[in-house]
Amino acid sequence: MIPISIAIHGGAGTILRSEMSPDRERAYRDGLQAAVDAGYRLLEKGGSAMDAVIAATVSLEDNPLFNAGKGSVFTHEGSHEMDASLMRGDDLAAGAVAGVRGVRNPILLAREVMLQTPHVLLSGEGAMAFAKACGVPMEGPAYFHTDFRYQQWQAVKDSGISVLDHSTASQLQGANKMGTVGAVARDIHGRLAAATSTGGMTNKQFGRVGDSPVIGAGTWADNNTCAISCTGHGELFLKAVAAYDVHARMLYKGLSLEEAMRETVMGKLVDISGEGGMIGVDAKGRVSMAFNSEGMYRGFRSSDGSGHIAIYGS
Amino acid sequence: MIPISIAIHGGAGTILRSEMSPDRERAYRDGLQAAVDAGYRLLEKGGSAMDAVIAATVSLEDNPLFNAGKGSVFTHEGSHEMDASLMRGDDLAAGAVAGVRGVRNPILLAREVMLQTPHVLLSGEGAMAFAKACGVPMEGPAYFHTDFRYQQWQAVKDSGISVLDHSTASQLQGANKMGTVGAVARDIHGRLAAATSTGGMTNKQFGRVGDSPVIGAGTWADNNTCAISCTGHGELFLKAVAAYDVHARMLYKGLSLEEAMRETVMGKLVDISGEGGMIGVDAKGRVSMAFNSEGMYRGFRSSDGSGHIAIYGS
Repeated sequence: MIPISIAIHGGAGTILRSEMSPDRERAYRDGLQAAVDAGYRLLEKGGSAMDAVIAATVSLEDNPLFNAGKGSVFTHEGSHEMDASLMRGDDLAAGAVAGVRGVRNPILLAREVMLQTPHVLLSGEGAMAFAKACGVPMEGPAYFHTDFRYQQWQAVKDSGISVLDHSTASQLQGANKMGTVGAVARDIHGRLAAATSTGGMTNKQFGRVGDSPVIGAGTWADNNTCAISCTGHGELFLKAVAAYDVHARMLYKGLSLEEAMRETVMGKLVDISGEGGMIGVDAKGRVSMAFNSEGMYRGFRSSDGSGHIAIYGS
Repeated sequence: MIPISIAIHGGAGTILRSEMSPDRERAYRDGLQAAVDAGYRLLEKGGSAMDAVIAATVSLEDNPLFNAGKGSVFTHEGSHEMDASLMRGDDLAAGAVAGVRGVRNPILLAREVMLQTPHVLLSGEGAMAFAKACGVPMEGPAYFHTDFRYQQWQAVKDSGISVLDHSTASQLQGANKMGTVGAVARDIHGRLAAATSTGGMTNKQFGRVGDSPVIGAGTWADNNTCAISCTGHGELFLKAVAAYDVHARMLYKGLSLEEAMRETVMGKLVDISGEGGMIGVDAKGRVSMAFNSEGMYRGFRSSDGSGHIAIYGS
């Protein structure tokens, strides 16, 4: 019996135990567990991997602790520009959006791109016009305002520095943590799916796009190999074509998901100083997670009874 | 002695001899030859592969016959939104822009992204703000207006159809040709580079982004394997991660450039109905070109004496 499985992440980077209070750690762990449960419940009922990864990602987007949806960081202009992508392993159907503002759940807009258009990736003003046309829930600036993110932005607003992640103000100067959320799943029918969503970089300028909305870089799913969602230094994950690279090592070299992910994350990405990590599930429902950063917010659950929630490296 | 080589393309698709007058064919062939020569001249003088692919791409962007730069097609709103990317095989340095308007040579803006920012991909309004900040030449709508493209747009403007390519008005209804330009090169020092630029789809809506500005999909370069520039149905090239897939088949399966390109273009892309083609050069300076469409505007020249300009399949 091949298990149903879901895995999620809430970003990777320098997550210091010394800066994490017991209450704060509990809140993160609860948020991760809620996202795992949201996806797993659907899988248990025979739902699709696609619906499961969307439910898990929406749960993380709605949680202000994670840099996606409601918890998105502030751009240089004081707005919130979000990216998201998702992919279905049955038929390589995919949808993605980059640089959208005011969309409550960017992953739901990515789904509409997949379902309603012949396109894969819509960007900026055009993507927002599409959002309005298809009626996904929109929110005003108040929804996306969190004091924590606002203070992060104020701390670096005039510095010219863009910060890749969510962290405490004191860490921001040298910070290199990566705020992204994502999910991968295998359903009872053996279908795989992957989803990734991000609120980008604090103080982001110039319409920068990272790996999160790019199929092959931040997100990949193929029923024959694996589903992958990445979190890390977006530019380097783009250059590594990180998610697809795992697929390629499985398909062309015959590696297992765990071996392929280790080569990509601990080999290739480390070689180019590409800090971050990824989660994956293979056709047999086996979950793998790998990161070369100090920590990665993560969790999984499988019908073989395995599962856990974790933040740090060990 | 390993040769220096440059290859270029000016788009792929249903290029019908019956619609091509001798004068028109001559103009295309001259434009392709001029682009090959612009790049080859630099390589001959010991110039870098990066400078050669940029010179060839600028030549094609400045030629109104090709759908990039000056010859870009009209969007649904009557503007011209362009995408471009480039990559250097030495160090995987890369730069790209998506959805920029008014930039005379998008490939030069992609170079500035690579040289002046820590980012890989800038999009939309932000990318245009960066263009102004770094002083690349800008042009008004008159520069990008060509009667041919305007008539193409008028023919489909109110139809809701987006058209992927450059073709005569009569072909537009069922057309599926792909308007993109690109170049790949190997220089005397064994360095590889690739560049791709496009004016997008006629009647394009919603900020659609195809494969051209995406590193790994439309463009790839790694000195150890190959440099690739693609032209085709952008959504399917994105899902195929087409350019990187050739690299992966070479690196992980040990295939030659020609074998890898054949598998990607004639196998994988055909399997998903991904019409189009690509050009490539490997570390030994060998050029390969493959397309599953009826034709591809293309040309190459190598210091081993080989070279040609071609449009049709045979």
